[in-house]
Amino acid sequence: MQRIQNLIQAVKAPDHGLAEAAQARLDNLTKPLGALGRLEELAKRLCILRGGLQLAQPRPAAAVFAADHGVALAGSSLYPREVTAQMVYNFLNGGAGINVLCRQVGATVQVVDVGVDHDFPEMPGLIQAKVARGSANLLEEPAMTREQTLEAMAAGAKVAGDLIKAGHDLLIPGEMGIGNTTPSAALAAAFLGLPAREVTGRGTGLDDEGLARKIGMVERALQKHQPDMSDPLGVLAALGGLEIAAIAGYALAAAANRVPVLMDGLISAAGCLCATRICPGVKAWLIAGHASVEAGQKAILADLGARPLVDLELRLGEGSGAALAVNIIQAAVAIYNEMATFESAGVTGH
Amino acid sequence: MQRIQNLIQAVKAPDHGLAEAAQARLDNLTKPLGALGRLEELAKRLCILRGGLQLAQPRPAAAVFAADHGVALAGSSLYPREVTAQMVYNFLNGGAGINVLCRQVGATVQVVDVGVDHDFPEMPGLIQAKVARGSANLLEEPAMTREQTLEAMAAGAKVAGDLIKAGHDLLIPGEMGIGNTTPSAALAAAFLGLPAREVTGRGTGLDDEGLARKIGMVERALQKHQPDMSDPLGVLAALGGLEIAAIAGYALAAAANRVPVLMDGLISAAGCLCATRICPGVKAWLIAGHASVEAGQKAILADLGARPLVDLELRLGEGSGAALAVNIIQAAVAIYNEMATFESAGVTGH
Repeated sequence: MQRIQNLIQAVKAPDHGLAEAAQARLDNLTKPLGALGRLEELAKRLCILRGGLQLAQPRPAAAVFAADHGVALAGSSLYPREVTAQMVYNFLNGGAGINVLCRQVGATVQVVDVGVDHDFPEMPGLIQAKVARGSANLLEEPAMTREQTLEAMAAGAKVAGDLIKAGHDLLIPGEMGIGNTTPSAALAAAFLGLPAREVTGRGTGLDDEGLARKIGMVERALQKHQPDMSDPLGVLAALGGLEIAAIAGYALAAAANRVPVLMDGLISAAGCLCATRICPGVKAWLIAGHASVEAGQKAILADLGARPLVDLELRLGEGSGAALAVNIIQAAVAIYNEMATFESAGVTGH
Repeated sequence: MQRIQNLIQAVKAPDHGLAEAAQARLDNLTKPLGALGRLEELAKRLCILRGGLQLAQPRPAAAVFAADHGVALAGSSLYPREVTAQMVYNFLNGGAGINVLCRQVGATVQVVDVGVDHDFPEMPGLIQAKVARGSANLLEEPAMTREQTLEAMAAGAKVAGDLIKAGHDLLIPGEMGIGNTTPSAALAAAFLGLPAREVTGRGTGLDDEGLARKIGMVERALQKHQPDMSDPLGVLAALGGLEIAAIAGYALAAAANRVPVLMDGLISAAGCLCATRICPGVKAWLIAGHASVEAGQKAILADLGARPLVDLELRLGEGSGAALAVNIIQAAVAIYNEMATFESAGVTGH
């Protein structure tokens, strides 16, 4: 707990005083004022977050936190539980969507076992930080104890800290866990004060009947645990999952180190939402990667005031939509650094 | 005219018979069915357009067609006419937005003078194909003669043909021409049958008064020329511009060579729209790069049934939004080629 408390203390607001100078630089580039739209906004925001007017290309890294879920045993997902572990091997072999999309943008991929119901051998790229062999079934009891929640958060925070020490300055929270859209929807409903049906989606592809059953599960979980907004850690423990808690810790540690977090889909955003409820200062460091098909993710992004960069109807998770959005950030940095000014190009300005 | 007629004859429909096999391949990749959303759609469409199930990464090229406009002398734009030529030098020096964004995705940039009111020396990267020193003022007379229109189309077609011969297989139509959103809006209004106010925007940044004046210009142009939909070449001649006609020829030649065209903003889309009115078969070969701030562009894309890949509130033109979208196409191809299958990864499937 002390480690998490220290991180909370360390989160500071970024320096908005840089906005004007960054915009002045953008306004001198050979284009009509504001013509590069959200690329300009993004370059300006990166200056603010990085605390300077020199923008280097980001060194992005994704961490894929994997865990199993008690609720999956109650039939919340189309896929069997063993797929979580199978996909961990797929990540380690470089064959999953997140691997492909990270290669495209030069991002590294770390895989972190925080709660998979499987014993992995030591493997390159795999960080072993198992807290439990999956969370408990939130329909019957809290998904995690408070101690487990803090332990998973600390594991996520350590991964972020190590990536930052290694020079990474743009962190993607990714995840894998069969059944994990159900706890994520429950967290969104609880923290946003929305009915289950507005934040619960089809996950990997439920039909209407499966969706209705899942909405019912989220409602029962909320009713059972009566989430108390004044105790966000307790809410995360009751309704969350080990990889979601790890993402919360990862985002918290990134913010504490003044490093922006590029959010992915529903589960990734739910973990970041938890971080902002535990430490509101985290919000300023969050960038929305993409708009997921899952309504719960869109609701979370709206609450966080984070506009997604890409909307391609993805619903894969893993960090994949965020990885895709790294391209946009790279383009914004390139524009900021490489375009000629009116003066240098001899173009008549505005 | 014979050259243009030959191209029209050569445009064929792509082979939709490949869709099922492409989807079957996508469905075997380690992800829930359809979870990569529009990336999957795009990979499938590329298979159809390329005519095979093997997708290589595209070799993109942008051609920036530059021309001046008589209507700019009537005060349709915020910028003086000489900026067209100044920006051509900026393109050739690599300092414009299109250069930066093309470098990011490995696309080449050709600059083509089809009608700038300036004499350029021979310079690497510049193709000299001047048809006239700018179009006439469409408020008073047809912007171009039919002969000029065909000559500009042939110039654009030659550029496309040469790029394709050099191995490029994804062509971006870019443009530069102070004043060119006005003829583009007029073409959109004419071909889509929409009132001027619905397709006319602020261009490089007009205020309310400037916008009202510009809408009035588009209305007067439509009234004066009474565009006849059965004569699309005549409509393009009356309301268009030399770079817009060149883009129409470029898109036509790409389609005739079975090469997809990645459209940019309003002017680029207007040129492609003209190509589809002259040869409806071109439509199947058009991909929408991005959604521009300009309402006229969105109206054209809707008419063409082309959903933009990126929406970042850009209004720069040059080809910049299309260049940004190349990333998305590269990601779609990478996913299609590099992801593991359920079988190869040992993951339990659906």
